[in-house]
Amino acid sequence: MTTDRLKDMLGRVSLTPVKKAQSVLLNALTGSTRQTETCPLPDALDRLLAKDLLSPEDLPTHPRSTMDGFAVRAADTFGASSSMPCYLEIDGEVAMGQMPTGKVVQGKCFRIATGGLLPEGSDAVVMFEHTIPVDGKMIEVVKSVGVGINLINRGEDIKKGNPALPKGHLLRPQDLGLLAGLGIADVAVYTRPRVGILSTGDEIVPWSESPPPGKIRNINGITLAASCRRLGAEVTDYGIVSDSEDIFFATLERATGENNVVLFSGGSSVGMRDLGERVIEKLGNPGILVHGVALKPGKPVIIGLSHGTAIFGLPGHPVSAMVCFELFVDPAIRFFAGAPTPNKQFTQSITAIIDRNINSAAGRLDFVRVQLQEQEDMPPLAIPVLGKSGSISTLSRAHGYFLIDEPTQGINKGSQVKVTLLQ
Amino acid sequence: MTTDRLKDMLGRVSLTPVKKAQSVLLNALTGSTRQTETCPLPDALDRLLAKDLLSPEDLPTHPRSTMDGFAVRAADTFGASSSMPCYLEIDGEVAMGQMPTGKVVQGKCFRIATGGLLPEGSDAVVMFEHTIPVDGKMIEVVKSVGVGINLINRGEDIKKGNPALPKGHLLRPQDLGLLAGLGIADVAVYTRPRVGILSTGDEIVPWSESPPPGKIRNINGITLAASCRRLGAEVTDYGIVSDSEDIFFATLERATGENNVVLFSGGSSVGMRDLGERVIEKLGNPGILVHGVALKPGKPVIIGLSHGTAIFGLPGHPVSAMVCFELFVDPAIRFFAGAPTPNKQFTQSITAIIDRNINSAAGRLDFVRVQLQEQEDMPPLAIPVLGKSGSISTLSRAHGYFLIDEPTQGINKGSQVKVTLLQ
Repeated sequence: MTTDRLKDMLGRVSLTPVKKAQSVLLNALTGSTRQTETCPLPDALDRLLAKDLLSPEDLPTHPRSTMDGFAVRAADTFGASSSMPCYLEIDGEVAMGQMPTGKVVQGKCFRIATGGLLPEGSDAVVMFEHTIPVDGKMIEVVKSVGVGINLINRGEDIKKGNPALPKGHLLRPQDLGLLAGLGIADVAVYTRPRVGILSTGDEIVPWSESPPPGKIRNINGITLAASCRRLGAEVTDYGIVSDSEDIFFATLERATGENNVVLFSGGSSVGMRDLGERVIEKLGNPGILVHGVALKPGKPVIIGLSHGTAIFGLPGHPVSAMVCFELFVDPAIRFFAGAPTPNKQFTQSITAIIDRNINSAAGRLDFVRVQLQEQEDMPPLAIPVLGKSGSISTLSRAHGYFLIDEPTQGINKGSQVKVTLLQ
Repeated sequence: MTTDRLKDMLGRVSLTPVKKAQSVLLNALTGSTRQTETCPLPDALDRLLAKDLLSPEDLPTHPRSTMDGFAVRAADTFGASSSMPCYLEIDGEVAMGQMPTGKVVQGKCFRIATGGLLPEGSDAVVMFEHTIPVDGKMIEVVKSVGVGINLINRGEDIKKGNPALPKGHLLRPQDLGLLAGLGIADVAVYTRPRVGILSTGDEIVPWSESPPPGKIRNINGITLAASCRRLGAEVTDYGIVSDSEDIFFATLERATGENNVVLFSGGSSVGMRDLGERVIEKLGNPGILVHGVALKPGKPVIIGLSHGTAIFGLPGHPVSAMVCFELFVDPAIRFFAGAPTPNKQFTQSITAIIDRNINSAAGRLDFVRVQLQEQEDMPPLAIPVLGKSGSISTLSRAHGYFLIDEPTQGINKGSQVKVTLLQ
């Protein structure tokens, strides 16, 4: 695939804006296959529906009381007040979990508890608190009720054949509750995305080893794997792969065949970047989509696609890798998890006050890590966490981040910013 | 324990404000034991630290380049510009993952890649892009660098003995990265909270069964279990328990002995509420903390504590149960998961515009479910999801909720509200 990389007069490759890179990626992904499977309801938490679900029955199947009180004919209570109560005879009781026997006729009522089925003839419930017992057989009603008051009608929660939940819906606890209420025992969901992670760089050793002089522990492997697991992905760790082109290509090719998304990281040096670019091009179909984005930190990211698998060459610096994960890898994993496209997600944030002036180059998206500090009767203070993008502790100290978009050249102390939590 | 329940002139129990109920609960919990355990680093995701962690070493252990370029003595570049470059001789190269051999002396430099160790004698790195090759042995430097530029110093990320992460910290992906970078293989974390769930009500059948007339499927069991699992709790389902006082008490007593938090739900009728209250009082030490809160929906919640275990009698209506879970059970589970007390959590929200007038009784907290609808160049519209608290589909249709606090008597159409996502 020919990529639309422009070079400037000095022969430098021009950088793709972040939004453009995201849309190029998501457009390319629409051709990828998302697998589906059937999952027992209790295991479907946090999975996404692969089909529109219609309700197989009315919920509830019978009208039920939503209060403790008396099932009545509403018309019998019209005009009742504490100064002018109406009198009703207690003619029966609804046993919990049983079909009521008998019928409420004019001037009479049945005792009923919350959840009890409305007996025939009744069309409303008078709350216990709005009655005064006269004797064991008679009550005074001191407040009138309208038809349908203090009860939930057949199908009022959801009607048979009506949409219960749409395709692409994330199954939250309350959604499992709805499906349980409808007796749906198995759910068609998207298969969990499979993500393969390769770490590169001759200076990297497994984090569990003590690094000899000159080497450092592999940080990105564990950080990226945990970020993927949080999105519900199944992660395969391909370990630390040699910078040798043949070995790297063979491992990347295998990982691409076995996963929906492949990440390699550690290639921040020019040599590794070039190697990453060459092997993605060699995998082809289509190969490289984006190489280099107008982003700080995270500029040298490589985004590719091969045979339906998204491939990301992430910068080696832990902070840059994490920023690129948030902006590019996260939406790709969500795509394979079954998120609707275009994915209109509402994102929550905290309004905070920036505590100093921040500079930003025009034409570049800045990802600013901040700590938040509570202030009395004011939005919290956002304190930028300064530090190099090779410093993992800055990400660990940060409560969240905000973005300075491309046209903005800086933000003044005291301005409001929208902080997304890194939680 | 004598609870401070006041009765009004009509003998009605006065309701506890939500904030008061929350603080009574959290104060009482501070006497409960939170267990800790040691966990291998890769499994520590989303667990909370049980101890302050100090860094066992400097990170990085040696100064490293953060750019591809040349390791130099900064003083050699002072005054360099594109019109007046300085010339440096390439005297060596830093091999990736190796200790550099040799030393950078005046007028000379070493080739270095991102992540390479700074050779002795050098104190800065000139980016490749700010150099012009003269021949294989000599470069022009067209921009001066100061001492420490384009490198990360020994201990600059974190110094040996300095706090790495505080007790009570939630271990996010980036925190695992920091601990991996420091070679910390095992982490002291709080043990996952254990939650027991009892469902009550003679009208309830397991959700997987087809309910006979008069019965309904158990919705709360699955919804509450999923909500607990999302908080990292280990859930034991005690099934549907008979309303018989002896059986209910015996099961609740066993569950209280086996868990940090026990939930029972389904007791919305007066009979079940009284039963719930009696058995928690009977468990004692101290017994009931709160019975009935100024909240809609969710008023009849019972909150108790027995031998260090928090016990919640949740309303039977699915929506009310979920609201009480958000406001009371969630903080209790977070306490046992190791959250610091007092737990100053920053909560994210979405600013939205309410699309109609909403009434609210003074003196009561209202929990209003809403759908969000995007609007061009405006905050999204918040559309209240109307429906009874027995209707699980209203929670499933809601994107989030906002609260109307006790003194407020209503909200006017067009006002801004802060919506928390139910995600």
